[in-house]
Amino acid sequence: MTALEERPAAPARTTWIDCDVHIAMPSPAALRENLPEEWRERHDRYGGNPFHASLYPRMALGAARTDAWPPDGSAPGSSLPFLREQLLDRWAIEYAVLGPIVRPDQAGMRNPGYAAALARATNDWVVREWLDPDPRLRSSIVVPVEDTEYAVAEIERVAGDPRFVQVYLQIKTSAPLGNRRYWPIYEAAAAHDLPVSIHFGGVGGHPSTAAGWASYYLEDHAGNAQTFQHQLVSLVCSGVLERLPDLRIVLIEGGVAWAPALVWRLDAAFERMHDEVPHLTRRPSEYVADHVWFTTQPVEEPPDPRSLARVFDDLPCLRDRVMYSSDYPHWDFDAPDQVLRTVPLDAALRAKIMTGNARELYRLPR
Amino acid sequence: MTALEERPAAPARTTWIDCDVHIAMPSPAALRENLPEEWRERHDRYGGNPFHASLYPRMALGAARTDAWPPDGSAPGSSLPFLREQLLDRWAIEYAVLGPIVRPDQAGMRNPGYAAALARATNDWVVREWLDPDPRLRSSIVVPVEDTEYAVAEIERVAGDPRFVQVYLQIKTSAPLGNRRYWPIYEAAAAHDLPVSIHFGGVGGHPSTAAGWASYYLEDHAGNAQTFQHQLVSLVCSGVLERLPDLRIVLIEGGVAWAPALVWRLDAAFERMHDEVPHLTRRPSEYVADHVWFTTQPVEEPPDPRSLARVFDDLPCLRDRVMYSSDYPHWDFDAPDQVLRTVPLDAALRAKIMTGNARELYRLPR
Repeated sequence: MTALEERPAAPARTTWIDCDVHIAMPSPAALRENLPEEWRERHDRYGGNPFHASLYPRMALGAARTDAWPPDGSAPGSSLPFLREQLLDRWAIEYAVLGPIVRPDQAGMRNPGYAAALARATNDWVVREWLDPDPRLRSSIVVPVEDTEYAVAEIERVAGDPRFVQVYLQIKTSAPLGNRRYWPIYEAAAAHDLPVSIHFGGVGGHPSTAAGWASYYLEDHAGNAQTFQHQLVSLVCSGVLERLPDLRIVLIEGGVAWAPALVWRLDAAFERMHDEVPHLTRRPSEYVADHVWFTTQPVEEPPDPRSLARVFDDLPCLRDRVMYSSDYPHWDFDAPDQVLRTVPLDAALRAKIMTGNARELYRLPR
Repeated sequence: MTALEERPAAPARTTWIDCDVHIAMPSPAALRENLPEEWRERHDRYGGNPFHASLYPRMALGAARTDAWPPDGSAPGSSLPFLREQLLDRWAIEYAVLGPIVRPDQAGMRNPGYAAALARATNDWVVREWLDPDPRLRSSIVVPVEDTEYAVAEIERVAGDPRFVQVYLQIKTSAPLGNRRYWPIYEAAAAHDLPVSIHFGGVGGHPSTAAGWASYYLEDHAGNAQTFQHQLVSLVCSGVLERLPDLRIVLIEGGVAWAPALVWRLDAAFERMHDEVPHLTRRPSEYVADHVWFTTQPVEEPPDPRSLARVFDDLPCLRDRVMYSSDYPHWDFDAPDQVLRTVPLDAALRAKIMTGNARELYRLPR
C-alpha cells in the first residue's frame, strides 16, 4: 500500500500493466436486468443454488405464500396478529408448535460461540414475542447442533419452560445424526422428556444428495425425503435409540410414504448382518415403531388416494405416529380442512393425525 | 539423507532426539491378533469402512456366498465351469446378464487414461473368457464414467458386439448422473440401442449418504436405495430423458418398493415448480414409466408379502419394468425359485418379472 502523497510523479514515458482490477454491477438488480427474459423470472423465483447448501424455493421471497406478508410489510411469519388471523383463528387451531425460522446455516455455524449466541437470542425472542402473548403456542428449542456442549447447555437453559416442547435440529448436519458426538444432545432431551425434532434445512458441508450436488430446487424439494431416510437409518443403527428407550424423534417436512420400504430393507439387512451392530437388541422396525413420529406436510399425493391409506397398513405403527402440520407461512402450506381430504382414512385415524397423536406426544392438555 | 559411511563418529557425550520413527505390525494378521475377541470376528467379516467409499459387506471375502469359491481356490465369480454348475445349469438359466466385478473405484479412477485402460481390459476379457465360450451369457460394457470422451470411445469400440446388452455405470459418481457432462454417454448408448444400467458400487469422492458418512455396512447396504433415488431424481430433472426418448435406464440392486413414494413426491413438487425445469414437458412419473427398469435383488421383504404386491398397484408401470436378478455369487444371492415366492403376484406378472421384461428390454431371442 502506497500513500498517495508519497507517490513520486511518474515520468511520462513509464507505463504499467495492472493485472487485477475489479469492477461490479451497481446492484443485484443490474445482474437481473442483464439476464435474458426467459431467465429473469426463474432468477426471481428460485434465486441461487450454489455448491454449498440444499436451499429452498422462493427463499428470496421468504419461501412464503404470496399472501403471507403482514400489512406492515415485515417478513412472513414475523407477526403474531397476522398469524392469528391467517392460521390460529381462521382454522381454530388448538395448539401450534412453532419451528422458528433461522438462517439456513445457523445451526451449523462454524464459530461455536456465535452459533450458541444465535440460538439463545432466538429462543429468548420466541418466549418474549410468541409464547408469552398467546397460550395456544408451543415452540421448539433451537440449538447449535455442531457444538454438543453448547447445544446441551441451551437445552438445560430453557427446558424448564414447559412451553418448549421439543428440541429442534435440521436435517443437514456435518455428520449423520446417529454419530456418537451428538448423543449428549439426545440424552439431555430425553432427561427433560423432550422429543428431538428434525426439520428440513441446515448446512452439512457436504453435497446435498448422496449422488452429489443437485442442480434444481425441485430435486432438493422432492429428494429431501432421502436425507431424512439416511438420518433415520443412522439413528437406528447407531444404537442411540437402544441406549435411550424414552427418546422420541419427530421427522418434520420429510414425508411419510417412504417409511415402509425403508423399514423392510433395514430389517432384511439386519437379519443377515446383525453381528455388525451387536449393540442393537431389536429389529430396526421395532426402534422405528417405538421412537419415530412424522408430520404430514408435504405429504405424498399419489394419483390414487387409496395408495396413501395403504401406507398405514404397510407400517401399522404410523397410525400413532403421523401428525398434521401446515408449514405456515411457506408456499406449499397445507390447510387442515384440505390435507388428506380425499384419502380414505377411518375416522379414528383421521382424529389421531389431526390432533390425538400430537396431543399425546407433546403432552398437550385439553 | 546422509550416507552411513560419511557419518562422523558421534562423540560419546552427544545425544539426539528423533521425533519421527515408524514401526509396523509384521502383518495384517498381527493387528487382528491384537484385537479383543469380540472385535476379531467383525474385523474378519466386515473389514474396514474408512472415510472414502460406501463399501460392501464381506468384501475381504469377495462379498461372496460361502460356497462360491471354485474348487481351484480362485475368486468367486471367476470360473465359467463353476458358474455353469452353481447357476446356469442348476436353474436352467436361459440368459444371464453379466456385471463384471471391477475394483470399487475403477470407474471413478482419477487418472483418466488408466481408467480407460482398465475398462478396455475388462471388456476384452469378458468377450474372450465368457461371451465366446457360452451362448447363454450377455454382458454389460464397463466404462470410465468420469471421463466422458473415453467412456463414449469405449462404448463405440465394443457396441458392435450384440452380446454387450447395456452400458454399466455404478451408483456412486462424482456428480449426479443427470449432470450434462455425462450426457454424451447416454447419447452413445441410445444411438446403439443400449440401455444404461446403474449398479451398486463406485466411488464419488463425497460422503456415502446425504447425511454424511455412514458408520456401518448395514447402513450402506440398506440405505443404498436412497442413492438410487437421488440418481433417478437427477436423471429425471436434468432433462436427458426428454432429450433422448429412447434412452432406457436399468437400476440394478437398488430395490423397487421406494419407487411409488418417490414418484408421488416428484410429481407433486413438479406441479408447483415446473417453471424451474421448463425443459421437462411431462410429469416426472411419465419419464419414470417410459424409461426406467428395476432388478429384484435385494427386493424388499415386507412382513406381509401383500405389501410388496401392492407396489405394482401403486406404480402400475412396474409390471413391465421389474426383472429378476440373483446377484450371484454374492452373499445375499436370490435363487429364482425362492425369490418373491410368498408374494401374491398374478401369473402373468410373475412371468414378466422372471423372463418377459428382460427378454424385451435386452431383445433376447427365444
